[in-house]
Amino acid sequence: MIMDTKEAQELMRRIYLKRDKERGLERTLLRTFQELGELSDAILQEHSQDEISDEIGDVFAWLCSIANLLDIDISDALWKKYPGVCYRCGMIPCECSETP
Amino acid sequence: MIMDTKEAQELMRRIYLKRDKERGLERTLLRTFQELGELSDAILQEHSQDEISDEIGDVFAWLCSIANLLDIDISDALWKKYPGVCYRCGMIPCECSETP
Repeated sequence: MIMDTKEAQELMRRIYLKRDKERGLERTLLRTFQELGELSDAILQEHSQDEISDEIGDVFAWLCSIANLLDIDISDALWKKYPGVCYRCGMIPCECSETP
Repeated sequence: MIMDTKEAQELMRRIYLKRDKERGLERTLLRTFQELGELSDAILQEHSQDEISDEIGDVFAWLCSIANLLDIDISDALWKKYPGVCYRCGMIPCECSETP
């Protein structure tokens, strides 16, 4: 399954936008921290690749919810910050003197 | 700019994979929490839409780095967990009795 980020956001919009609006942006942010915590937990406890993938899907789903509430396109946001090169050193691959 | 998530992961792979490997998975997770904190901060302090978009781009970039280190495809992960419907109630839009 290859999805562009617009399709991913649209999928989440169709399933969850009403819920996201009811919950509001601040609690949606908190839920995203929680999901990132679950992903960390799955990694640290060496869960199966399937379980870790499940948690990656969740973090991305919640990031889509945040972006939907803010009416921001995730690809646009990524490309604006990283236009094909490192945003600090301007190189690909990154040649920054410190590891970020 | 419309990117599919594979292109986004490939972009981050080409710019940052060497750095991501040097940093390692645990510190990459920590940096992602930090970026999510910066996004929260930008939202709570009512920064401009451009600044908030910048932080959304960063969170997604770091999620791509995590997924690259784990060799997980973000779209596959999302679609496996959310196959066009809510993963709990099976409906679109979600009809779960509680707001998740």
